[in-house]
Amino acid sequence: MIENTFYSEKEQGPYSNYNLGDFSLAEGGIIPNCTLAYRTYGTLNKEKNNVIVIPTWFSGTSKGYEPYIGAGRALDPEKYFIVVFNQIGNGLSSSPHNSPEPIAMGDFPKVRIEDDVKAQHQFITEHFGVKEIALVVGGSMGAQQTYEWAVRFPDMVKRAAPIAGTAKNTVHDFLFTDTLMEAITSDPGWNKGNYTSHTEVADGLKRHANIWAVMGVSTEFYVQEKWKLFGTETVDEFMEGFLQPLFQSMDPNNLLSMAWKWQRGDVSRMTNGNLEEALGRIKAKVFVMPIDEDMFFPPRDCEKEQQMIENSELRLLHSIVGHFGLFGAEGEAYFEQVDYHLSELLAE
Amino acid sequence: MIENTFYSEKEQGPYSNYNLGDFSLAEGGIIPNCTLAYRTYGTLNKEKNNVIVIPTWFSGTSKGYEPYIGAGRALDPEKYFIVVFNQIGNGLSSSPHNSPEPIAMGDFPKVRIEDDVKAQHQFITEHFGVKEIALVVGGSMGAQQTYEWAVRFPDMVKRAAPIAGTAKNTVHDFLFTDTLMEAITSDPGWNKGNYTSHTEVADGLKRHANIWAVMGVSTEFYVQEKWKLFGTETVDEFMEGFLQPLFQSMDPNNLLSMAWKWQRGDVSRMTNGNLEEALGRIKAKVFVMPIDEDMFFPPRDCEKEQQMIENSELRLLHSIVGHFGLFGAEGEAYFEQVDYHLSELLAE
Repeated sequence: MIENTFYSEKEQGPYSNYNLGDFSLAEGGIIPNCTLAYRTYGTLNKEKNNVIVIPTWFSGTSKGYEPYIGAGRALDPEKYFIVVFNQIGNGLSSSPHNSPEPIAMGDFPKVRIEDDVKAQHQFITEHFGVKEIALVVGGSMGAQQTYEWAVRFPDMVKRAAPIAGTAKNTVHDFLFTDTLMEAITSDPGWNKGNYTSHTEVADGLKRHANIWAVMGVSTEFYVQEKWKLFGTETVDEFMEGFLQPLFQSMDPNNLLSMAWKWQRGDVSRMTNGNLEEALGRIKAKVFVMPIDEDMFFPPRDCEKEQQMIENSELRLLHSIVGHFGLFGAEGEAYFEQVDYHLSELLAE
Repeated sequence: MIENTFYSEKEQGPYSNYNLGDFSLAEGGIIPNCTLAYRTYGTLNKEKNNVIVIPTWFSGTSKGYEPYIGAGRALDPEKYFIVVFNQIGNGLSSSPHNSPEPIAMGDFPKVRIEDDVKAQHQFITEHFGVKEIALVVGGSMGAQQTYEWAVRFPDMVKRAAPIAGTAKNTVHDFLFTDTLMEAITSDPGWNKGNYTSHTEVADGLKRHANIWAVMGVSTEFYVQEKWKLFGTETVDEFMEGFLQPLFQSMDPNNLLSMAWKWQRGDVSRMTNGNLEEALGRIKAKVFVMPIDEDMFFPPRDCEKEQQMIENSELRLLHSIVGHFGLFGAEGEAYFEQVDYHLSELLAE
């Protein structure tokens, strides 16, 4: 367990913790007193049928979804009871950096997407008595969790909107994630996960950020000098003043825990590797929402999965920012699209 | 100067060396007795107007173009005198690993695309008395040199076909190349370029290969399991049996020298940064030939440049292999396209 002020309410906005007890993991082992950090908006109605679940993306926290939620938006707290779940390993929920011995740091057990969804399911059923979810929506690893929800709890999930993510991770994404992990683990300061401060891994975290700069946005992002969307005047400022410090403030083991999980996201684990059968289980109405300029969750990968889901539509989002379009740096030009599709889905 | 058997005729096929004398570089400094390694096919005709020049891509040698050249192909040695030039730094021409003190290894001077083209021009004029080039064609960094030829020697170059490359390197490519370089320089074995064998940098070269696996091919390459084109049965075999050993057999300083050069390829250095003016100088008929699945020289980047060239056409190549389509692993499905376009261009 080490200090890292990045993972605080001051940096990440308000959130609450729920103690799941001794939480058993798919890969074996447990997280004792596993903490699930969450943030809610709005009020659970009497029928308990106005619940929207939103799981976080890689490296992100509940703060990342703030701009998606608000009065007048599709994700409207005046109508819905919205629960944003921080995935295990993200630094707010139980994670390598905040766990005590014997699961601290490099000894943190392997966590899978299904563990997150089971944890979220346990919380929402035992804490709120919820039996029906109006919508699960999330971006990237949040999309992986969204698919897992829809396949694992088909009678409970009424609608699902995976944004910029897949039900079964691709080989290309696995290899891409390898490079992100190697950028960190190649730093001698990482020391097999046994550093005393994340600042000892600053070089590795910088290389990690640099790879994100290549794959996280689009080639056209740079042609059109869209780094200005992030409040930076030059590409050097985008790198040195935004992207590198962002990842350098995070915990290396947390990032590695999430990356390992991302690599293995696969709903077909529930059906002996048969993806068509797994996606065939879904009873929810599904809008599959890839981002057109996404370099590692390209629309055609997402469309292949959409076509295996009976009650589904492909709804393409446009963002020159590519995968990082999820951050919402384009403002209303992006959120108007998200709202348009999610409003239609919620009206179904 | 160190031993590396990868850079031998046994591995790279036959080639000849030309001594350029003390060769002055754009960034300052000289390469004493600079060696330009080249391979020729066919015979220079009496009019000396049947010359085709082909410069090499990043990490490649003259061997890479073997499948492009042959009787019945567009690049036909029975009609043309074909000169394949190994770029400086590629391990056959003067390079960090094969140069003596004081420019050995980490002390090798910075080389630019324009240095390569000036070296090739010096050779072809003083050795063969050539005054006209029927065609310059090359892929990737070979395309950068092709553009440089057409802009720098507009009266000499009659036709040009840059394949999968740009006249002015993009910001995205610059950042991508940074990650390739960091993969190597982060290896303690690299030791600022002062290793005694490239095997001391095996970890860094492996990471370098792993990043190529993400950007060098396409997402669809993995979906369609196209690693079989490289004679490998599984993706692990593609990585561990082909891509990693390939780059691990190369010299780290050589790769870094070429990468630095690639990052700064820019014909508008001749026109105070005005790309339109630079490309406006071209008198050659130009076919701009991007590969549709290329992740870092996407067709739209190439098309923007094509539109600045008066006598030009965009000729798109299809390859599911993406940028590494250049290697020709798809066989005739790829080379038939190349031949079709180059034959038309040569008939102009």
